Amino acid sequence: MGEFIKNIDKAIADLRKGKFILIYDDDKREGETDLVMASEFVQPESIKIMRQDGGGLIFLMTSKEIANKLKLPFLAEMYNEIDDKYPILKELVPNDIPYDSKSSFSLYINHRQTFTGITDIDRSLTMKQFAKLIGKVKNLDDGFAARIFGTEFRSPGHIPICVAANNLLEERKGHTELVISMLKMAGLSPSGSGCEMMGDNGRALTKENAIKYAKDNNLIFLEGKEIVEAWKKWSK
Amino acid sequence: MGEFIKNIDKAIADLRKGKFILIYDDDKREGETDLVMASEFVQPESIKIMRQDGGGLIFLMTSKEIANKLKLPFLAEMYNEIDDKYPILKELVPNDIPYDSKSSFSLYINHRQTFTGITDIDRSLTMKQFAKLIGKVKNLDDGFAARIFGTEFRSPGHIPICVAANNLLEERKGHTELVISMLKMAGLSPSGSGCEMMGDNGRALTKENAIKYAKDNNLIFLEGKEIVEAWKKWSK
Repeated sequence: MGEFIKNIDKAIADLRKGKFILIYDDDKREGETDLVMASEFVQPESIKIMRQDGGGLIFLMTSKEIANKLKLPFLAEMYNEIDDKYPILKELVPNDIPYDSKSSFSLYINHRQTFTGITDIDRSLTMKQFAKLIGKVKNLDDGFAARIFGTEFRSPGHIPICVAANNLLEERKGHTELVISMLKMAGLSPSGSGCEMMGDNGRALTKENAIKYAKDNNLIFLEGKEIVEAWKKWSK
Repeated sequence: MGEFIKNIDKAIADLRKGKFILIYDDDKREGETDLVMASEFVQPESIKIMRQDGGGLIFLMTSKEIANKLKLPFLAEMYNEIDDKYPILKELVPNDIPYDSKSSFSLYINHRQTFTGITDIDRSLTMKQFAKLIGKVKNLDDGFAARIFGTEFRSPGHIPICVAANNLLEERKGHTELVISMLKMAGLSPSGSGCEMMGDNGRALTKENAIKYAKDNNLIFLEGKEIVEAWKKWSK
């Protein structure tokens, strides 16, 4: 128990310092470890670490409150709304995700100051400015927030935004919800940046190798259930 | 001139063997080199090379004919059609891409047999099966082709499909058009898989370093203008 509290507290301290933390969801879910950090601290060097040591999809995460303010839809819901006009979306409906009932993907964006959108400099700019945007819009009305969003970002772009479920960990226990809960407990802007960690054998990095990576790089490794436990106490 | 013909011929031979080739678009466009291959030969090991030696976005490319058959829309056009329902898409309109007038992105897909969709095994399955699908549907009517597409793939997913311009290199000289032209000249299924190559300094890999990588790995490096020239002769 002491060890568990220490882990969460250290992870919160690391997030506040702009360090990466490692989050493994659950043996019964994806069974994947994501290398994540608070978006407000992302630098070009952070993207390089994500792509070299992670290797999965480099993505942004935010809360449902912020997504509502920015009028960001879940893609799956949007596709559902427009599938009379685009019947292929009906054919491709993602009703068979093996580990979950819904996809958390929203739009893919680039900051308007990026060039191709994909270099480390460009991806870090998109991520960091997204966190800054949240700070700017949080006290504005929704329509105005969406307009500011549009002056600074374009879509289609290269960075997917994953949106946490409305009731966070009470509703879904994916990486997006785990990360947003950690950021809330840390008192940071609710925008995370991260990447899944891949192994050398074509599969996700094993939990054992993720723990070893964390140890070798002086980073904290957390399991989803530890965050769920801490969140229950914190949010009471 | 001899050297130039040899380069194109060697690249075509390499594509047929399932090897990577390197394509640099143009100093006046993105100025990026993509590491690309024919999707029909993609293996988990290919994805590992793309993410470790490339580092950009791992994506599929196909022709406009195939996109039409599969009812795959350009995202930018789709967003334009639905922006009354989703006004945020009007705000985010990508009218300021510095190197081009339009985005070639279509939907993001996963093969339905994938698990998370992001491991090397999963991404290679999505890519390889997409190339196989093209072989299956090319003589079917469009509505039936789209239904087969939907039985095998879901969207949202992790692999973006970039669709070449209708008139290929006569219309646009992006990596997507360059790759599809090469595959047509090679007589291969019009589906390419690739990834932008990143440098160590936060920017795209320089042309010089891309040439060095090609030499070190016994791969062919081509510039967009060489492909445009060869395509003009071939398509006459």
